[in-house]
Amino acid sequence: MRTIRRTLRVEWAHCDPAKIVFYPQYLIWFDSCTAWLFEAAGLPTAALFAHHNLVGTPLVDVRARFILPSRFGDDVDIESKVGEFRRSSFVVEHRLRKGDALAVECFETRVWIRRHADDPDAMQSQPVPDDVKARFAVE
Amino acid sequence: MRTIRRTLRVEWAHCDPAKIVFYPQYLIWFDSCTAWLFEAAGLPTAALFAHHNLVGTPLVDVRARFILPSRFGDDVDIESKVGEFRRSSFVVEHRLRKGDALAVECFETRVWIRRHADDPDAMQSQPVPDDVKARFAVE
Amino acid sequence: MRTIRRTLRVEWAHCDPAKIVFYPQYLIWFDSCTAWLFEAAGLPTAALFAHHNLVGTPLVDVRARFILPSRFGDDVDIESKVGEFRRSSFVVEHRLRKGDALAVECFETRVWIRRHADDPDAMQSQPVPDDVKARFAVE
Amino acid sequence: MRTIRRTLRVEWAHCDPAKIVFYPQYLIWFDSCTAWLFEAAGLPTAALFAHHNLVGTPLVDVRARFILPSRFGDDVDIESKVGEFRRSSFVVEHRLRKGDALAVECFETRVWIRRHADDPDAMQSQPVPDDVKARFAVE
Repeated sequence: MRTIRRTLRVEWAHCDPAKIVFYPQYLIWFDSCTAWLFEAAGLPTAALFAHHNLVGTPLVDVRARFILPSRFGDDVDIESKVGEFRRSSFVVEHRLRKGDALAVECFETRVWIRRHADDPDAMQSQPVPDDVKARFAVE
Repeated sequence: MRTIRRTLRVEWAHCDPAKIVFYPQYLIWFDSCTAWLFEAAGLPTAALFAHHNLVGTPLVDVRARFILPSRFGDDVDIESKVGEFRRSSFVVEHRLRKGDALAVECFETRVWIRRHADDPDAMQSQPVPDDVKARFAVE
Repeated sequence: MRTIRRTLRVEWAHCDPAKIVFYPQYLIWFDSCTAWLFEAAGLPTAALFAHHNLVGTPLVDVRARFILPSRFGDDVDIESKVGEFRRSSFVVEHRLRKGDALAVECFETRVWIRRHADDPDAMQSQPVPDDVKARFAVE
Repeated sequence: MRTIRRTLRVEWAHCDPAKIVFYPQYLIWFDSCTAWLFEAAGLPTAALFAHHNLVGTPLVDVRARFILPSRFGDDVDIESKVGEFRRSSFVVEHRLRKGDALAVECFETRVWIRRHADDPDAMQSQPVPDDVKARFAVE
């Protein structure tokens, strides 16, 4: 599956009084990585919204394990990919490493929500289009 | 002028590795206080947006002085009021105290932006309506 | 088990361009609720840190289900309690409702980490003290 | 003066329901840019803290003008430099542009705070060391 890799610096704004990353910050990073992954697949979010009636890919479920803390000043590496496509949902997997050590692992289950063609206020989950899926199959 | 007062607890999420409030957090609080002030004046933001074609009251200028730090676990008091109405802008003043001591002072200059009646994509600054101003004059 | 209940207003700062709560914001709220729950049990975080050599109760695992979105201007109710104490960890359960409808459910697994008495730089997980557990047993 | 330039993408997490950058987010970016500027000058924050007894360079004053909004999906360019060194404070200037247009301008006044050598709990503002100043003079 198509995989993106980013290196992020742990900055002052990301840390709590224990001088480690405040844990919801990881989920903010992973949300961003999902957008980068879509962009790497030729599907930048802003364009998806404009051209596909897509309202968003909201989370319905998230799980994360926090194995090692990340400290102010650390550089961390995040690897993100779609782990699985289901009918109208998909699971994005994120793994954050410090050097070779797995520090955080996260599984986001997201749904594909479109605005109803006849009623712009109605939103509904929709099957993920095949051409969208295909873009994640190859690296 | 109508004035609101709130007491907020400095929580873990608000603090940085120095164990004090990360300074942009103050501005997040003050932005929230502006919304509370409008609501206290009978103008809840959500209703303003729905019924007045208001797009928002975006900031054009902000100034803040940070006199004393606020620490994790502190309770702080914020007092907010409109300091001045100009033609299409207004200044909201926020003062955050720890006990009797002034800790942070902030001046937000905001503009009144409405969607154009004939062109929903066009936005323009507009004079603040007199009935809106009147609601801030009395406590 | 001791349970706390809070009502929170969904504010501008909490929302994303879809006008709903940006999902990591829920986890920031739940982290805050855990601190409130400890305070309600007579264990305010700042005091725990000062008097028990506690470094924190970092998360090792989080799971959340997002059932209904919360919109700008909504009031939401959060109910939080310790669902289970294990040896050196515990699970805090948070349920966020809109009216009677369950909107978000979250399970935080946290560990009790103390500074080593002989080596202040060393940290280790420790059994949750019995007197701490006892404080959560009664409402 | 030494100047750094960064390009940032406006992401989902940065935006509010008006689909533009939530204004305190600019100040979070600028705080980060100050750290990058110090690092570019050979003074990474984490090292400053460890080796210079530096507690931080807290803000005492901030001013910002918001000229143009930045929208979800935009790429913005930030240019940061020290505008002025005073005795124990300095002004960091940040200018954020969309293409050639100045969108946000910010002036942070920060103080140089060190831990007292004899009393680690006491903090005091100190003259900015000459060798620190020298590192910002040349690009």
